[in-house]
Amino acid sequence: MAKKKAAKAGKRPVILVTNDDGITAPGIQALVEEMKNLGEVVVVAPDGPQSGMGHAITLSKPLRLDKVSYHGEVLGYQCSGTPVDCVKLAVNQILHRKPDLLVSGINHGSNSSINVIYSGTMSAAMEGAIESIPSIGFSLDNHSLEVNMNQYRPFINKIAESVLKHGLPVNTLLNVNIPGVAAQELKGIKVCRQARAKWEEKFDERTDPHNRKYYWLTGEFVNYDNGEDTDEWALVNNYISVVPVQFDFTAHHAIQFLNEIIFND
Amino acid sequence: MAKKKAAKAGKRPVILVTNDDGITAPGIQALVEEMKNLGEVVVVAPDGPQSGMGHAITLSKPLRLDKVSYHGEVLGYQCSGTPVDCVKLAVNQILHRKPDLLVSGINHGSNSSINVIYSGTMSAAMEGAIESIPSIGFSLDNHSLEVNMNQYRPFINKIAESVLKHGLPVNTLLNVNIPGVAAQELKGIKVCRQARAKWEEKFDERTDPHNRKYYWLTGEFVNYDNGEDTDEWALVNNYISVVPVQFDFTAHHAIQFLNEIIFND
Repeated sequence: MAKKKAAKAGKRPVILVTNDDGITAPGIQALVEEMKNLGEVVVVAPDGPQSGMGHAITLSKPLRLDKVSYHGEVLGYQCSGTPVDCVKLAVNQILHRKPDLLVSGINHGSNSSINVIYSGTMSAAMEGAIESIPSIGFSLDNHSLEVNMNQYRPFINKIAESVLKHGLPVNTLLNVNIPGVAAQELKGIKVCRQARAKWEEKFDERTDPHNRKYYWLTGEFVNYDNGEDTDEWALVNNYISVVPVQFDFTAHHAIQFLNEIIFND
Repeated sequence: MAKKKAAKAGKRPVILVTNDDGITAPGIQALVEEMKNLGEVVVVAPDGPQSGMGHAITLSKPLRLDKVSYHGEVLGYQCSGTPVDCVKLAVNQILHRKPDLLVSGINHGSNSSINVIYSGTMSAAMEGAIESIPSIGFSLDNHSLEVNMNQYRPFINKIAESVLKHGLPVNTLLNVNIPGVAAQELKGIKVCRQARAKWEEKFDERTDPHNRKYYWLTGEFVNYDNGEDTDEWALVNNYISVVPVQFDFTAHHAIQFLNEIIFND
């Protein structure tokens, strides 16, 4: 076990914890508690909710970073920026080194399938991977702030400890989603691919007291993928999904087609 | 040529134009002018700069959408949200159908390599592709608002017309970057892969008049990729780069490794 090895070698790994629901969210608190079993924990998280921020970075205004009291032996900072800003600030201004592991979450709501794109939780993990830090995003398919996050900690421990011990292939990170059922109903962990699914958007059109229209984004998530090797299948069947994610977005299979259509007309 | 064919058939394609620099930016105006040669243009763009917004969506506040006068025969709307919000609103609230082509840009600044992740320009195009719209992001490696964007329009026309005529492979979009040199110095168009490059961040730490610290994100772009088939190579060598991009981020090559480290311990 990595923990024991690291302990034997006399140095504990440094684990950076962040999220997109804000530093006071129950999800990050459960994650911090579990990571304390695996290493020295540093928390750098947004000072408020940043859901749906995708890979946004803050360019037009300066960032604030404030040390906060956080769970005793844990070093905690809240940041006025996005989840990606938090990771950049943590590495450059707080740690002055790369942590041995970055974990983001536990997000209140799943980030399976196409949601990897919109998710601040996953963008923080992706930023970690770009910085060559072994990085994992954890999300729970349950939006309730009342849910008992601690019941999922043994699974989180297992995945995080495997990554601490073995690392990850270069330029990859993990997208871990936990079904929103009680831990005793979970069937286990399944390594998956990202399902082909998307949001069918709808806008809720309203009129304000000054007679101007405004719109709330809403919509329905639709899975178009029948594969049994996808994260959506895993979640529906009570498995924790683990999808390896990359940030080289090149569609290599399309290169030949493009050469033909652009140059052979 | 697609334009002639479409004209012959009596219907011109509908082209949605958006960006992340805001509806008044010179880049989108040049793009609109060129697209008018290829179809019926509808512009839905942010009401102000949205650079670095990545794939952010607006969940915590409602969106405004206002019709604006824009270049005569063009239907124009400005939106208070992110580039991705613009695409969702355009498809759902304005067009009530999928456009035949979505073009985003021309961004003032390149979006090659890893910048595909941070870029609002590219996220708008990615959102289009998720909606099964043939989508292209255009960026110019020059931040000056004074630059003559019109000189690049023949290249943009060629790429957009090829996509209108032939479509794109399913679940892919294009990331097009133009070197920041005069058009007559351009050597042509090159289909490429995304280079392995990243930002080495630095933060500019300052103290405000109330003696509190604040930070400006800054940094240096570093290319770690020696390949001559990359977008960075193309730009340095005065070629316009065209990278096919996908939004299935699964790192398929890592699945076996993960099964081994998670389950065989």
